[in-house]
Amino acid sequence: MLAGELYDPLDPELAAARIRVRELLQTLNQSLSSPGRDALRALFGTGGDSVWMQPPFYCDYGTNIHLGERVFFNFNCVVLDVCEVRIGDFTLFGPAVQIYTAMHPMNAAERRLSEFGKPVTIGSDVWVGGGALILPGVTIGSRSVIGAGSVVTRDIPKGVFAAGNPCRVVREVE
Amino acid sequence: MLAGELYDPLDPELAAARIRVRELLQTLNQSLSSPGRDALRALFGTGGDSVWMQPPFYCDYGTNIHLGERVFFNFNCVVLDVCEVRIGDFTLFGPAVQIYTAMHPMNAAERRLSEFGKPVTIGSDVWVGGGALILPGVTIGSRSVIGAGSVVTRDIPKGVFAAGNPCRVVREVE
Amino acid sequence: MLAGELYDPLDPELAAARIRVRELLQTLNQSLSSPGRDALRALFGTGGDSVWMQPPFYCDYGTNIHLGERVFFNFNCVVLDVCEVRIGDFTLFGPAVQIYTAMHPMNAAERRLSEFGKPVTIGSDVWVGGGALILPGVTIGSRSVIGAGSVVTRDIPKGVFAAGNPCRVVREVE
Repeated sequence: MLAGELYDPLDPELAAARIRVRELLQTLNQSLSSPGRDALRALFGTGGDSVWMQPPFYCDYGTNIHLGERVFFNFNCVVLDVCEVRIGDFTLFGPAVQIYTAMHPMNAAERRLSEFGKPVTIGSDVWVGGGALILPGVTIGSRSVIGAGSVVTRDIPKGVFAAGNPCRVVREVE
Repeated sequence: MLAGELYDPLDPELAAARIRVRELLQTLNQSLSSPGRDALRALFGTGGDSVWMQPPFYCDYGTNIHLGERVFFNFNCVVLDVCEVRIGDFTLFGPAVQIYTAMHPMNAAERRLSEFGKPVTIGSDVWVGGGALILPGVTIGSRSVIGAGSVVTRDIPKGVFAAGNPCRVVREVE
Repeated sequence: MLAGELYDPLDPELAAARIRVRELLQTLNQSLSSPGRDALRALFGTGGDSVWMQPPFYCDYGTNIHLGERVFFNFNCVVLDVCEVRIGDFTLFGPAVQIYTAMHPMNAAERRLSEFGKPVTIGSDVWVGGGALILPGVTIGSRSVIGAGSVVTRDIPKGVFAAGNPCRVVREVE
């Protein structure tokens, strides 16, 4: 699955991993207090030590999400981590940002049988505006700003402001 | 209401139906385990026997949603079913997809008093990308793929890839 | 903070206010019944007496949100109220509408240290379609209709239908 090959989402090992993360997320999302550090360490593959979050947060596995220092997720973010999601230091996600690595075949008959994924990489000091969608395979360069509500279908270089559906570079910000 | 005529959303019978579904959804959305089959059967008008879901899920009534075999809703989908929503077999909804049948009058004075709706119909083997919005009255043909973040304001034929705000056909996929 | 000046989001007084609202919201969002009037009065700066809501609802402070009579929020709305959000009477928000007053500096080095905000003002009898995003500093005039999925980056006058990303006036509605 992590290699981007076709896989069966009903595989028992994958299903067990999704149940584990579901229980973690429900506890975290329903807590009256801020998310505990132990829960955040258990949730993410890397970076739970310093991540900051406004729940609710939703993901498929958690273990495939690798965060740098002091990443922030605002309310209602979704990360579909069937492949690796790597995020640098001090990157900020507005509310309801969604990062997808999960893909389905375009052919309807193949779609019934399997799915696959492509990794996502986001640099350091990036600000992703609320409601933006980051699609499978995308890389976003460090220090860039993604406008609210953008649909990021292709790579975005470092140090730019990019926005729109589809998301395009508007100007440099450095 | 189901006939698309103006109605009062504060009608006691409608309010009672919304309280029923709210209790069902809260139980389902807060459960530590996967949604139970009995809860899914109680939630949907048709199709609870084989639907697959990543909660949370939100809808107005549930009883007006009719699903084919093995429909999948990912995290955070919303269906406003004041009119019928009919969905075929094996159709997949990404996270935070929203299907609306509820409309308000464009005239502000009328809007204070009433609302109305238009049904939505989605075929079989459709893949609706995450964050897409399906507006009242829309029909989407079987085997089509709707791009993530699309706003579907008009009918989409079968067997195409369509994307954008507003959503337009990009190419055939068959 | 309310004056739009740079502030430290980790300030203890602000952190305490966010914990207060988090506990209010968790209680309200997890309740099996409709949100109680006392909880709604405690949540909003003004307007809790007549607001109508489909939870879940998320906000930063609540006390900076000032509503007129009978405002309605559908499922999953988010309001980032680091500056004041003022909304008139009878205004309707579809599901997953997001109102942002929180901004970050465009310069990456400044972004690590501080954030700031700009207020949002929405008139009376406005209908904001589901999934729309209202960005910091925006004013929307009374009786206007904002299309579903719009990204409102600039002011919208009264009495118009406006839609798109970015949101532009399509026609008058009066």
